[in-house]
Amino acid sequence: MKTLLSLILIILSPALLAVEQWRTPDSENLVYMQLATGTVVIELAPFMAPNHVTQFKALVKEGFYDGLDFYRVIDGFVAQGGDVSEQKPSQHNQPLKAEFSRPTPDNSPFMPVQKPDFMAAETGFLHGFAAGRDEQNQHEWLLHCPGTLAMARSNEADSASSDFYIVIGQATRHLDRNMSSFGRVIYGMPAIQALQRAELNNASGVIEDPSKRSKIQWIKLAKDVSAKQQLNIQLQSEFSTELAQRLQSARTLDNEFFHFKGNGNLDVCYYQLKSRLLD
Amino acid sequence: MKTLLSLILIILSPALLAVEQWRTPDSENLVYMQLATGTVVIELAPFMAPNHVTQFKALVKEGFYDGLDFYRVIDGFVAQGGDVSEQKPSQHNQPLKAEFSRPTPDNSPFMPVQKPDFMAAETGFLHGFAAGRDEQNQHEWLLHCPGTLAMARSNEADSASSDFYIVIGQATRHLDRNMSSFGRVIYGMPAIQALQRAELNNASGVIEDPSKRSKIQWIKLAKDVSAKQQLNIQLQSEFSTELAQRLQSARTLDNEFFHFKGNGNLDVCYYQLKSRLLD
Repeated sequence: MKTLLSLILIILSPALLAVEQWRTPDSENLVYMQLATGTVVIELAPFMAPNHVTQFKALVKEGFYDGLDFYRVIDGFVAQGGDVSEQKPSQHNQPLKAEFSRPTPDNSPFMPVQKPDFMAAETGFLHGFAAGRDEQNQHEWLLHCPGTLAMARSNEADSASSDFYIVIGQATRHLDRNMSSFGRVIYGMPAIQALQRAELNNASGVIEDPSKRSKIQWIKLAKDVSAKQQLNIQLQSEFSTELAQRLQSARTLDNEFFHFKGNGNLDVCYYQLKSRLLD
Repeated sequence: MKTLLSLILIILSPALLAVEQWRTPDSENLVYMQLATGTVVIELAPFMAPNHVTQFKALVKEGFYDGLDFYRVIDGFVAQGGDVSEQKPSQHNQPLKAEFSRPTPDNSPFMPVQKPDFMAAETGFLHGFAAGRDEQNQHEWLLHCPGTLAMARSNEADSASSDFYIVIGQATRHLDRNMSSFGRVIYGMPAIQALQRAELNNASGVIEDPSKRSKIQWIKLAKDVSAKQQLNIQLQSEFSTELAQRLQSARTLDNEFFHFKGNGNLDVCYYQLKSRLLD
């Protein structure tokens, strides 16, 4: 028996060791945002919204967002930033074709979590992002979970250009497949949560008095951030052992703390992948 | 045709007018909490957790929480406050029998929103609180949505006594029917969202350095709050016309903004009832 177990472990070990537990994000896909409340780091998702990512990076590079505001901040919903005046000159502030979803590629590394999901045929992770997919129509997309970054738009699908929002409340899943999500906050959500909100009775959420808006001091591409300000962030892999164990434990609530064991369904927006800081 | 319509309107109008759109919360069930980041107002739920409410009010009245900390604050999860030392003397810090749910009374005013829900047989509102119910086992309970207040406990069901938490992230629905929820934040969630979090790499979430914890300046029963600090808060009724319209619109996404129309399912934690301030 013991020999058999050892044999199994020997066979399995190389496979287990080969699973990447943490990854270092590609600095090409990272931006830093400086707020009075702290530093925020965002990972971009060119695999899903390449044109939005390209334009956002160009806007960042020209300093478009520097000194602008979070002008529409609704507690429990989103913090929206950018140029409320629509007057700031820019070489890159062009309406973009919508990138709400993408055709599922043959080699999609989608890691399934929940099927069916409450709002989608299936949910899981895609390159570290909470995602949905529909095998019937062969599409996949990014979910609106807390920390999701997407481009704001008017009623027309192809009207997003520069103003963005970050989800700060309960997942706004009705925006899935309706907005171009192109990133997620991987560090500094508390700095976003500390942003000045619109008043309770302000239905539009637009903070009219500029002096009451939280400012974006700057947004920079990771490579343009000073060495002193660089953070050594690692991201948990969706194929990590820790996540597999966490999801399994969440499905069964098989722990003496839980007296009611649930129904096995998982809200992927609650079980997001972890970030960690190395020294 | 026009006459018929007028007739219908005349018949319906008194019924429509009779529906209470906003209510003034019972001051007996209100507590105020003062933080450096702002004032928070909480409505208690004696209909669901009478013993937890009674004990919490007694602790508030004796000033138990005044000067204590939010000592465990995990971004995206909960802000937990109280006496981390377990040394503060109190006349009312006794372990309480769990109040995770209640048998559905014959006259329960449960207002249904979603059936089946992802995590429960049915969800809706109960006395203004997001709630679940199971008609099969004839129980109803409060959901863990953003802003939900519940008593912390150890593994034993009947071990909660004084330390409490407020949900600050994506709904922690796995705690439903596992914790005694006894209130909800009706004003001041931004002040809670601005609380100091534990560091990213701190898995337990307990902030070890007391100087880094956000303090509870005081918690008072509404009737003990000075006239100057009283807020004239009104709460939207779950039977209001505005909510009915909002839910109907959310089910169909029948608005030109939405290009993908969803599947009709609603997450009640996203569609919470509104508060407003009167002068």
